[in-house]
Amino acid sequence: MKSLNIGIIGFGTVGTGVYNVLKSFKNIKIKKIAVKNINKKRNIENFDESLLTSNAYELANDPEIDVIVEVAGGLDPAFDLLKTAIQNGKHIVTANKELLAKKGSELFKLAKEKKVVILYEAAVAGGIPIIFPIKTILCANKINKIAAILNGTTNYILTKMAEKELSYETALKQAQELGYAETDPTGDVEGFDAAYKIAILSTISFNKKVDINKIYREGITKITSQDIKSAKELGYTIKLIAMGQLLENGEIDVRVHPMLVAKKHLLAKIDNATNSIMLSGYPVGDLVFTGAGAGAEPTASSVVGDILVLASELETTDMPLPQTVCNHNEYAKQIPIGETYNEYYIAINASNSPGVIGLIGTICGQNNINISTIMQKGINNDNTAEIVVITEKSKESDVQKALEELLKSNCIKNIDNLLRVMN
Amino acid sequence: MKSLNIGIIGFGTVGTGVYNVLKSFKNIKIKKIAVKNINKKRNIENFDESLLTSNAYELANDPEIDVIVEVAGGLDPAFDLLKTAIQNGKHIVTANKELLAKKGSELFKLAKEKKVVILYEAAVAGGIPIIFPIKTILCANKINKIAAILNGTTNYILTKMAEKELSYETALKQAQELGYAETDPTGDVEGFDAAYKIAILSTISFNKKVDINKIYREGITKITSQDIKSAKELGYTIKLIAMGQLLENGEIDVRVHPMLVAKKHLLAKIDNATNSIMLSGYPVGDLVFTGAGAGAEPTASSVVGDILVLASELETTDMPLPQTVCNHNEYAKQIPIGETYNEYYIAINASNSPGVIGLIGTICGQNNINISTIMQKGINNDNTAEIVVITEKSKESDVQKALEELLKSNCIKNIDNLLRVMN
Repeated sequence: MKSLNIGIIGFGTVGTGVYNVLKSFKNIKIKKIAVKNINKKRNIENFDESLLTSNAYELANDPEIDVIVEVAGGLDPAFDLLKTAIQNGKHIVTANKELLAKKGSELFKLAKEKKVVILYEAAVAGGIPIIFPIKTILCANKINKIAAILNGTTNYILTKMAEKELSYETALKQAQELGYAETDPTGDVEGFDAAYKIAILSTISFNKKVDINKIYREGITKITSQDIKSAKELGYTIKLIAMGQLLENGEIDVRVHPMLVAKKHLLAKIDNATNSIMLSGYPVGDLVFTGAGAGAEPTASSVVGDILVLASELETTDMPLPQTVCNHNEYAKQIPIGETYNEYYIAINASNSPGVIGLIGTICGQNNINISTIMQKGINNDNTAEIVVITEKSKESDVQKALEELLKSNCIKNIDNLLRVMN
Repeated sequence: MKSLNIGIIGFGTVGTGVYNVLKSFKNIKIKKIAVKNINKKRNIENFDESLLTSNAYELANDPEIDVIVEVAGGLDPAFDLLKTAIQNGKHIVTANKELLAKKGSELFKLAKEKKVVILYEAAVAGGIPIIFPIKTILCANKINKIAAILNGTTNYILTKMAEKELSYETALKQAQELGYAETDPTGDVEGFDAAYKIAILSTISFNKKVDINKIYREGITKITSQDIKSAKELGYTIKLIAMGQLLENGEIDVRVHPMLVAKKHLLAKIDNATNSIMLSGYPVGDLVFTGAGAGAEPTASSVVGDILVLASELETTDMPLPQTVCNHNEYAKQIPIGETYNEYYIAINASNSPGVIGLIGTICGQNNINISTIMQKGINNDNTAEIVVITEKSKESDVQKALEELLKSNCIKNIDNLLRVMN
């Protein structure tokens, strides 16, 4: 294995994890670590403070550094730093999903020009090997679908809501206290994090650029304990699913939203902060990869794995890992959510009046929606009823139109929730 | 990607699958296919019969062939054929688990001398990417445990026994009728197939040679519907588990046997012919890889994946994939089953006499075995009772001794089964 000098940008949880794991690999030398606050006390045994710098450009411009490991996150200054490093002929290992989802194609283009590689196993699903397998051993496949749990925070919250019958707010608060959710949880609970990851996975699976702004995104903040209870009664678990599909006409359908997942589905069994990716393709069929999607150590497994594979390849060639090159010229044609077909869960609050069920059935029918299950359980104190409808596969725009029509009727008080269903 | 000429040895289900998948990859040219019976009618559209030969050495000695793809199976003549091919400087892609488990170290040694690679993703778990990920992106890890369902036939039989309350014999018969089990099912049901695969996985995970003859192996033929019923009542599913563990003293524990797997464990949820591998290591933690473990198409995904990665690497180097080199000098110290520690399920047939439970408890206690659960359900017509005991972690040799002592007592009629438990 070739000896490499590396520079690490970012020295938080993941950076420190990478530092600790790299100690066992004598051929990889950490030459510099760029940090925000050089005076912060680091709780690491025998740590050489002279490795630290507050100027990350020192690393990007250091002629002795072979590989930049970027684990700082965010767009600015990471984008410019990595451009500089690539310009200077350095290979990149990064865990920065936002950067890759938003600016990946520019970086990959530059990397190709400069004959360096960008590796990013850690950017999606932490310790789970998925990027490298798709790029290498699975490359005989035409992948046509990914359905995945890519955000540990929301999966933890949904698991606790189901296990302990908690409200979203209470479960979020507990997740924050235990360190599973951040003080500002927006990036996780609104689905941004999962959207970055499914953008990356869809790009490498379908071999076209994916526009992050065209990914339909819906978080978990509107899921109620009543939804979870109804789902359970119907044989489902609610999960935040990131999905990418290659349609028969070559268009792609990429989105992130909560789904009712049938209990028999392997993704329904993924609890707490675990991540899991189901990938379907020809000839391989369905594969499921499950493991820790975050955390210092699992993420370090992927970052250091990338570094070691690169070091191994550089022993015998100056053009390592040609199969990882990611340089797609064309944007995928992404369809909007209105054009997708799904099964639906519709939670309706209606007045306790005769003909309500008939009205729902009629309006659904007029909009080409077949109902497969309808459930009403008793009457509320305010003389309204909760009605849950599960539909057969229907067009999203038809469903939206039906819901608008339902709301115009006096006896429909509210559409409490609309969720999609995966069987 | 470099253009490669390949020769395929073996043209059964997998060979035909590889042929079909390779049609989409114009840079990989099939130069020759070695078959047993050259006159057999092949049901393939536009098939060029002139590709066929009954002499596989033609391929191994053909200077125009770059890569030999061996999907014939068995030791003879595969071992000699691959040695000849390697001597002639050809790279090898093989799905032959028996050959690798029994003769792998000789082949890898020769390959290293001749500077060629042997790739074998398809030898373990069909389409599931596991060999290449362990060798590459997971290489930062110290793997300390593998627990896996590696044989689809036995998993199918056990699933049907549980779902439909069938006897082993009936479930086997149905599996044979549906093509899930062979006419002579020994290789699958006695655990040989799983033993070859766990030998390969343990070798690459623990980086020492594993002696296939020292792997403890027990099949599923003694599992009764009563065992499956009792397991279910206690919250377990019975699976044939292939296991490899690196112990703290550096010794390894490799074995194949049925286990009671706790219902909450991800492996308990793997049904029918699906395979699944749980791998634990530092820093990655637990990973689970699930997918089709057999079949023409999934296996072709792995075989063609190996070929394409090789072609890609050969574009930029004559020494491709250095990280896949497998050349272990040392044999692992494998411990015998008697020295392992496990939780146990013991099914006992006892006479309906006072003091039986006390006797079981006393003999277990005298042999350092703590009982965690004991269950007796009514009395049989012959005035005997079925008693099921679950123990805490105990030494196998102690358990065997306790069973011998129990059998000496008049009131113990039979030890119906002894199975190990995974929580």
